[in-house]
Formats: sequence, C-alpha cells, structure tokens
Amino acid sequence: MPELLNEHACFGGVQRFYRADSQAIGLPMRFSVYLPPGAEGKRLPVLFYLAGLTCTEETFMTKAGAQRVAAQEGLILVAPDTSPRGAGVAGETDSWDFGAGAGFYVDAVQEPWARHYRMYSHILELRELVLAMLPADPARVGIFGHSMGGHGALMIALRNPELFRSVSAFAPIAAPIRAPWGQKAFGGYLGPDQAAWRQYDATELMNDMAGAPFPGGILIDQGQDDKFLAEQLYPEAFEQACARAGQPLSLRRHAGYDHGYYFISTFVEDHLRFHRRLLG
Amino acid sequence: MPELLNEHACFGGVQRFYRADSQAIGLPMRFSVYLPPGAEGKRLPVLFYLAGLTCTEETFMTKAGAQRVAAQEGLILVAPDTSPRGAGVAGETDSWDFGAGAGFYVDAVQEPWARHYRMYSHILELRELVLAMLPADPARVGIFGHSMGGHGALMIALRNPELFRSVSAFAPIAAPIRAPWGQKAFGGYLGPDQAAWRQYDATELMNDMAGAPFPGGILIDQGQDDKFLAEQLYPEAFEQACARAGQPLSLRRHAGYDHGYYFISTFVEDHLRFHRRLLG
Repeated sequence: MPELLNEHACFGGVQRFYRADSQAIGLPMRFSVYLPPGAEGKRLPVLFYLAGLTCTEETFMTKAGAQRVAAQEGLILVAPDTSPRGAGVAGETDSWDFGAGAGFYVDAVQEPWARHYRMYSHILELRELVLAMLPADPARVGIFGHSMGGHGALMIALRNPELFRSVSAFAPIAAPIRAPWGQKAFGGYLGPDQAAWRQYDATELMNDMAGAPFPGGILIDQGQDDKFLAEQLYPEAFEQACARAGQPLSLRRHAGYDHGYYFISTFVEDHLRFHRRLLG
Repeated sequence: MPELLNEHACFGGVQRFYRADSQAIGLPMRFSVYLPPGAEGKRLPVLFYLAGLTCTEETFMTKAGAQRVAAQEGLILVAPDTSPRGAGVAGETDSWDFGAGAGFYVDAVQEPWARHYRMYSHILELRELVLAMLPADPARVGIFGHSMGGHGALMIALRNPELFRSVSAFAPIAAPIRAPWGQKAFGGYLGPDQAAWRQYDATELMNDMAGAPFPGGILIDQGQDDKFLAEQLYPEAFEQACARAGQPLSLRRHAGYDHGYYFISTFVEDHLRFHRRLLG
C-alpha cells in the first residue's frame, strides 16, 4: 500500500503526498492527492494532472491554486511525478529536458532507459491504484496537464478514451515529433525509428481517428507570449488534426500570457469546471 | 529606479519582479508586485505581504493564490524579500532561523549585523518607493504577513498606524520576546538588553496602547495543528493585550490546519476582502 508521507488541511479537504512501489517503473514513485471535503461514503470524480519538464508531484499542488475549485466541485485531484527518481541511469541528470524530470509519459524501449523509464504504464497503473485506495468513481476519471504533461494527457486520453472520459491541456507540446524537445525525448527513449514515435504523438494519433473520441470536446489554453510556442508546441497541428477527425476542440489563445504557472493559475478554474461538467 | 527583472500576465493583470538599490539595507533588494487589471489612471489600494523564515519575495506570489482575489478587488499586492542577500556577514547562512532569510523586520544595532540587517527601515522605504512608482493611493495601504512576517506586519502597523490603515496575519510569532525564534533573533540583532526588544514586539506594543489603534479590527488566522503554535507563536498573549487596549481582534482558530501555504491559500481570500473593506 502507498506510504502517506505528509498531509495538510486545505480548503476543508486534505492535501496528501504519497510514495508507493511502482511495478511499471521498478522503483518507488511519489504522487500527490487532493481530497475535497465531504468525500466520505461517496464515489467522486477524479482528475489527473501531468506536469511539465523539471516538475514533480508537488508543482501543481503548490502553484496552480486548484484546490479551491476542487473543493467546490467535489473533485479529487491526483498529480504523479514526471519521471523515475534515482534510477541510476548514466547521464540521466545531464539534461534538464531528458532523463530525470523529463519522462515524457512514454515507455522507453532503448537501453539504458527501458528498465525504469516507463511513465506511460505508470500513469495507467497509478489510475488503478488511486481508484482502489480513494473514494473515487472509476467511470468518472479525467486527465489534463501542462507542456510535456499537457501532451501526455492528450496522448494518454486518445489511446485510452475508455479510461479517461475528459481531457484538457495548458500549452501542450501538441506535436512532439515536430518539436526539438519531442525529437530528443522520443529518439532517446524510443530509438531512431520514427514509425515507433507515432503511437506517442497526440497529433498523429488524432490524425488516425475516424471520428471524435471525445464528443464533449477538448479544451486547450495557450498563451500567445509563450516563448516556446513557435518552436516547441504546434497547437495548430493538433487543431488541424481535430478538424479532420471531427473532434470538437476549444483552443483558446490568450494574448500576453506565457508558459508558466501564473498562466495556469489564471485558467485552472475553467479547466476544473470543464472536466466536472463532462464527468457529470 | 527599480529594475524590472521579469513579468507575467496573471488574472488579467501583471505579476512583476523588481530589484532596486536599498538605502536602508545598503544593498540591492528584490520585491514583487501584482498589479490588477484596470489600474490605468487610477489610485488603487495597496496591500503589503511580509513572508516568513526562509522565504523570499517569490513565495507568496507563487503559493498563496492571492492574485485571483486581488484582480477582483482592484488591490495591488507587494511582497518584499525577508532579509538582505549577499551582505557577506560571517555566519549569516549558518542558521535557517537567523541571518539570511530571517531578517525579522527589525533594524539591527549589534555588530556585525547593524550595517545591512535593517528590514524595519526597508519596509518603510519600500512603501515610499512603490507609492511613487505604482498607481497607488498613499491613504489606502494595508499590511499582512505570515509567521515571522505576520509578526512583522502587526509590529510595523502598530508603530505606524498612520502609514498602514489595515493589518492582519497568518500564524504570527505574536509575542517574539517569549519565543525561542524571537529571543534568538532579537538577541542577535538587538543585543542582550531586553528593554530594547519591546519596541519590536507586537504584544508589548499593544500592551502599551491606551486605545485601539485599528478600530476597524485586526484579523488573525491560526491553525490548531500548527506544530509551532505551542512553543513559538503565543496568539493568546496578543489576544490578551488587544482585550486590555480595547483593540477589536478576530482571532480565528482553525482545527486541522498547519503552518504552511496550504493553510494560507485556504484563508487568503478572507484577508484580501478584509483589507479591501477597511481600505475603502
């Protein structure tokens, strides 16, 4: 069972930090949970948040200000870490955008990453774990995230629409195959064969869709002063893929906003209410 | 003039970080400002936030979630750093609760601290600076803070009720003369003569009041699961001093809450609305 590391009263509910052995990763992994008030005896909807490069299970819970809205809406929030920790792979801390803190939510197949860098499977495993340990409704689980994690949320939801009923993102790396960050990560974790990258690219996955996997819509917020927008993010590619598949998408472009948590905190309330509405 | 280090759109306004040479400290000092939307051509109320031990000008702005309410209420938020940085005083980084990050909002008179550790004067100087540089109303300035900074806010407001028209605190070190943290700080910065400490102790200052300096009331929130409550904080001493002086005080004790920013974020909206009401 997960080990409760610490907990803090917050907006009438409780903010918890856990560590649990991960079968997928082969190491202990940390995650955080916000449990809103009034959860006793109920089955509440759950919203997973996947964070971006260099972040941890703490980032969203300390910086986004989401607990206030989660308390109002009766939503459980869950935030995993962004990569294995202490895997001991040579070079894993050499880059800020590859290795530790940069798992990219894929299952690596290249050595020396293949043993521990399996964040895709970890997210699915963590979904099962929290559904078993929390007063959560398995039929009402959503997912969102930011940047690397915004893409992770889109990609994981598109591959598993039966597991995640709603999806949204802040400034996702929407077409990683086209982005230097994505090329570095996918090349390192998945190898040089780009055919193997497509299964982890949200835009390519959407391009392959015959219909809309999320008929209730997908929400993406993107700052127009985001310094990574032109080179790394490609929301317009995902937008085109959604149009082709008939997938409703609300891609909101916000003048003046950048890539950070001041941007996220401004719009996080909209995301929680979006998920709450779709999750019923 | 202050140097703008960076800025971020946030809730329709702008979060800024500045550095400016401080006459009081004799070194450059950083501070942060949140400017709500719609400030052009107006004179808005200003609320200073003083942070606690180990914190910086960034802590409140990233963790408290206050900008949402400040945007609604048309309040400017200002957060100074908590001590000089790079003063080069021998031993200033040896303790987490004395020296760097622990200025305690007093003007040191003991060597080797007396030259730079002058946070009391710095707060008053920063008040003048922001009033000159921002669309701020000098007649509508409030102050609040947390722990060491909660005490700093109470103490500075009690000594300068003509400069700060409203005051509140989260888990303040309400009677530092009685607290190990306060004794260490005051002994180090002010010397062994405890008579010199009284001018910086909010409870002693309140004990000396003949009437209520803040007839509109003072607001203090205190978590009952705060691990520092019994040994360091003494809110009941300040409460007794307020009762003696006829100072209205709302001391709210919250079961289950601890000393950190999950606690602060839960109640920060109440504080901003409290100040906004008193500042008119």
